[in-house]
Amino acid sequence: MGYARAVSTRGFSEDELIAAIRKVLSGDAPGVVIGVGDDAAVVEAGAGEQVLTTDMLVEGVHFERSTISPRDLGAKSIIVNISDVAAMAASPRYALVSIALSPEVEAAWVVELYGGMRAACDEYALTLVGGDLSRADAVVISVTVVGEVASGHAVTRAGARDGDLIVVTGTLGAAAGGLALSRTHPSKAAEAFGKPWGRELAEAFARPVARVGEALTLAEAGATAMMDLSDGLAKDLSRLCLESGVGARVELAKVPVAQALLESAGLLGVDPLELAIGGGEDYELLATIDLTDVERARDELDERFGVTLTEVGAIIEEGLVTVDADGNEAPLEPKGWDHFADGT
Amino acid sequence: MGYARAVSTRGFSEDELIAAIRKVLSGDAPGVVIGVGDDAAVVEAGAGEQVLTTDMLVEGVHFERSTISPRDLGAKSIIVNISDVAAMAASPRYALVSIALSPEVEAAWVVELYGGMRAACDEYALTLVGGDLSRADAVVISVTVVGEVASGHAVTRAGARDGDLIVVTGTLGAAAGGLALSRTHPSKAAEAFGKPWGRELAEAFARPVARVGEALTLAEAGATAMMDLSDGLAKDLSRLCLESGVGARVELAKVPVAQALLESAGLLGVDPLELAIGGGEDYELLATIDLTDVERARDELDERFGVTLTEVGAIIEEGLVTVDADGNEAPLEPKGWDHFADGT
Repeated sequence: MGYARAVSTRGFSEDELIAAIRKVLSGDAPGVVIGVGDDAAVVEAGAGEQVLTTDMLVEGVHFERSTISPRDLGAKSIIVNISDVAAMAASPRYALVSIALSPEVEAAWVVELYGGMRAACDEYALTLVGGDLSRADAVVISVTVVGEVASGHAVTRAGARDGDLIVVTGTLGAAAGGLALSRTHPSKAAEAFGKPWGRELAEAFARPVARVGEALTLAEAGATAMMDLSDGLAKDLSRLCLESGVGARVELAKVPVAQALLESAGLLGVDPLELAIGGGEDYELLATIDLTDVERARDELDERFGVTLTEVGAIIEEGLVTVDADGNEAPLEPKGWDHFADGT
Repeated sequence: MGYARAVSTRGFSEDELIAAIRKVLSGDAPGVVIGVGDDAAVVEAGAGEQVLTTDMLVEGVHFERSTISPRDLGAKSIIVNISDVAAMAASPRYALVSIALSPEVEAAWVVELYGGMRAACDEYALTLVGGDLSRADAVVISVTVVGEVASGHAVTRAGARDGDLIVVTGTLGAAAGGLALSRTHPSKAAEAFGKPWGRELAEAFARPVARVGEALTLAEAGATAMMDLSDGLAKDLSRLCLESGVGARVELAKVPVAQALLESAGLLGVDPLELAIGGGEDYELLATIDLTDVERARDELDERFGVTLTEVGAIIEEGLVTVDADGNEAPLEPKGWDHFADGT
């Protein structure tokens, strides 16, 4: 591990770049015994169990440098990992970041990227303890987050039971709307950015929020299974059901479509419900919970965080189905959210 | 986290590929509470402190698919991280792996890559608990390894003191010789592979060994500072000195140049001493130790592991110098090991 590979960037020498990065990362933090600069970081072990997750963001696949600021990208790369830790009902503690830079990337961009990471770490009270720097033809960001959870208290995807209610936090589809907005014709985008909903969609895509406290609250209230919505309700719910060995029935009329997405539909030419179900990167929580626990969970999420909890259906013995307002059933298609697969 | 990004490979569907990878990774392991397949892995916290490290390997920068087998590459990507953990005098426990695949990569290659990772994890008694799968124009492998060390027992780069001896395990330069071999004219390579030294150099580059037990032994024997030699003695020693606020005097005649490298010099047209000092990826240990402790350290490394420990110089107050057999001093140039920067 080390910020020491041969990296060329415009405007800075490699040593200057490494010094700049170390400055962004510097600062003693609770629990850090040895931080950036050695073969490995050393941290105090927390109480309970350790939670480990990693995600890779690739330029041209998960992001375009032309449509997201380095600060937002840095923050997002950390937050998507925090969201995974949160979805286990765990608390994030430390982050490691490996980055490959392409030759045309300017040093200032890299420093802003690390600034965004640092800001996200500060916001969620975790510490960036190390990483690696390399080069490649496209920018690649690989983040690992280590968290902790009281022994036996992690909430997995595997605990959903027949009859549980299916709930989601917040609203869905805004991030997918933001992505659609970033791909739309410049004239339409300009019009959209003049509207509150346009800025809201862009914000949802560029700056997702990880539901750390909300996940702990849901776990305490009795969530039987939980995960974060990174690839869309349809696909993620199908995964949860697979791991739990159950099915699901989703009531389309209950899906909490983001208001900004509803307002954007005409201009962007998208189907809001389709994006709310099939679009990814909302990073809201998807959970299952017994009927007797849902009221308390809803009240506590509202009281503590001002976040709504919405029932969108119920766990059934098997099969994945949707039912519309008229009672018509159809298969829930676990359509993939393939990031930039179709675009740019 | 999840093996769930849209990835296209030749010969397998995405789902088949993920199933194949999960199969390679499957198996309960001590300490693993929740393994692959959820938002994050959950593992038991070890006693003492946690050690965290990460490294990224990029196709065209750190490796070429034409010159290393997927099995060797998989093993190496794990071992270089184990080496970083070992260099803190810690024990590796868990690994996370994120991989970006280019479209032309065949599924069988990926399965072999994971097979190599799994084999390395088995060999060093750590467990692959999760990761991420993505796509990119070139293959990128990002590995994070989590280890443990008794509280306060990590050996950093910062503890070297004026007068300490500088020691290295094993011999140096063989990996750089292997890299030179992979770049040489096919006719010379064919000739080299007919010789034991040719195979030895190739093996050193493709299948490095991490010195886990050796590092613990050196730490117990009193090593004041330690790191692994990933970027070459000159560059890595200069880093150790920088972190420790000291200088170093290296006796060139004492540097343990790999025998296979000495034998290759004529055919490959390389300077063995230059590769032993400037070439990277040996993953031997570089340590500093008091004169009164070195004998015991040497004996124990020999007895327990059959590994030689060689004094190559001494820590001085400041400056980085070499001295040759005739007593001529020259500056130790911290020349970089820039992997594939000059080649292929």
